[in-house]
Amino acid sequence: DILEASRRLLTAPSLAGRRILVSAGPTWEPFDPVRFISNPSTGKMGYALATVAARRSGEVHLVSGPSTLAAPQGVRLSKVVTAREMQESVLALAPGMDAIVMAAAVSDFRPTEEAPQKIKKIAGEEAVRLTRNPDILAALGRSRPGGRHQVLVGFAAETENLIENAREKLIEKNLDFIVANNLTQSGSGFGSDTNQVKILDRDGTITELPCLTKEEVAEMVMDRVEQQLGKGEHDDAVRED
Amino acid sequence: DILEASRRLLTAPSLAGRRILVSAGPTWEPFDPVRFISNPSTGKMGYALATVAARRSGEVHLVSGPSTLAAPQGVRLSKVVTAREMQESVLALAPGMDAIVMAAAVSDFRPTEEAPQKIKKIAGEEAVRLTRNPDILAALGRSRPGGRHQVLVGFAAETENLIENAREKLIEKNLDFIVANNLTQSGSGFGSDTNQVKILDRDGTITELPCLTKEEVAEMVMDRVEQQLGKGEHDDAVRED
Repeated sequence: DILEASRRLLTAPSLAGRRILVSAGPTWEPFDPVRFISNPSTGKMGYALATVAARRSGEVHLVSGPSTLAAPQGVRLSKVVTAREMQESVLALAPGMDAIVMAAAVSDFRPTEEAPQKIKKIAGEEAVRLTRNPDILAALGRSRPGGRHQVLVGFAAETENLIENAREKLIEKNLDFIVANNLTQSGSGFGSDTNQVKILDRDGTITELPCLTKEEVAEMVMDRVEQQLGKGEHDDAVRED
Repeated sequence: DILEASRRLLTAPSLAGRRILVSAGPTWEPFDPVRFISNPSTGKMGYALATVAARRSGEVHLVSGPSTLAAPQGVRLSKVVTAREMQESVLALAPGMDAIVMAAAVSDFRPTEEAPQKIKKIAGEEAVRLTRNPDILAALGRSRPGGRHQVLVGFAAETENLIENAREKLIEKNLDFIVANNLTQSGSGFGSDTNQVKILDRDGTITELPCLTKEEVAEMVMDRVEQQLGKGEHDDAVRED
C-alpha cells in the first residue's frame, strides 16, 4: 500500500543486499482432513519481522504456516501447513540466507497416523498416538554454512521458567540470540498486537523491553540482526588479514 | 460501517421481532495453555449468517469460537474457546430463541487431560487420551421449547458420503433443515469466501445451490428460516382455532 511504500522511502536501506528468511504462524498437524493439533499463533510477530526487514531493503523470504494475514509488501511468501512442510521449505532456503529469524510456532508433535477421510465420531474415550516433529531450529543451528557468519534467531514462548527455558534453547540450538515471551503476561504473545519480550544474548546479557507493538519489537530484533551481520563481516575482515 | 448501515436501510425488516441465535467458528480443545485440537473454520459462514439476519432487523446473538473476524454490526457477540464453553453459552440462550442456526465447527473430541503449564517436548512417541465432547445440536433438538416452533438448522461438512451423513444428522438431531458442504470441493468450505452447498429438508428434498459467496448462502439460509418461522405461526394459528 501507499503508506508502506512511503515508509520504505523514509527508511535507510540498512539491509540492502541481505537475504533474510523469516518463519511465521502456527503449523497444523492433521488427524484427518478437518482436524488438527495447532496453537494460537496468528503470524503477527513473523509478518511484522518480514515487513520491517523488507522496509530496510532486505531481500526477504517469509515461510508462513496457516494465517489470515495478507502477504507483506515486497516479500516472497511460501505458505505451508505442517511442521514437516515448514522444515522442507526452510531447510531448502537456509543455505543462501544471511540471517534466519524463526518466529513460527512450530508444533512439537503430530498425530502419528493421519486418516484420509473425516473420522466419524469416536466412542466415549479413545487413545491416539503422537510423534515428535523434526526440530527445525536445531537443524539450522547444526547446518550453518561455512565461510561466513549466518545469523540465527529463535523465539521462546513459555508459561513458566521463561529465562531458564529460553537460555537452554539459545545454547542447545546454537542461536545468536533468542526472543523470550511470557505467555501468561497480558498484552503479550499469541494474537495480541503488542508484545513484551526479553532478548537473551550468548554472553548472558538479558535485555528487558517494555510492552511494544509487534512492529516495534520487530524493529529491535532487526537492529540486533544488523549488528550481528556487521560483526560477522568484521570477523571475516580480521581473518582475511 | 456506512455500507452495512445503508444496506440495512434498503433491506425489508423481515426478521423484525425475531430472536436468532447463530454459532460460528471453530473450537479449541486444549492439551495445555498453548496447544489444542481444532479445525480450519474461520467463522466466515457464521458471521455472514449473523450479518444477514441483523440486516433483516432480527435480534441476533452470535456465539463464536476463536476467530479473527470483526463483530458484525448490530449483533450481540459472545466469544468462547472450547466446545464445553460453546455448549454452556448456546444452551443458556436457546430457550428464548425463535431460530437457532449452528454454523460453528465444534470439535467432536478433546484431550481428556489438560496440563496447567506448557508441556515440554515429548519423547519419540506418546499416547494421549481423547474424550468425546458434548453434542450441542442433539441437545438443542431434544430440548426445544414447547408451545411454539423453534427453527433449528445445522451444518454438515464432510469429505465423503455427503448426502447420507447429512441426512442422518438432520433426522438424528431433529433439525428443520441442514446445509451440507463437500469439503473436497474447491471454492467450498473452510476459510473460503465462497461455498457450494446442498440444503436437505425433512421431506427428503435436496436443493443444490451453485457456488455462491458465503453472504449469498447466508441469504438463502435466512430465506428458509423465515419460511419455517412463518409455517410455525400458521401451525399455531391452526391449533388456536
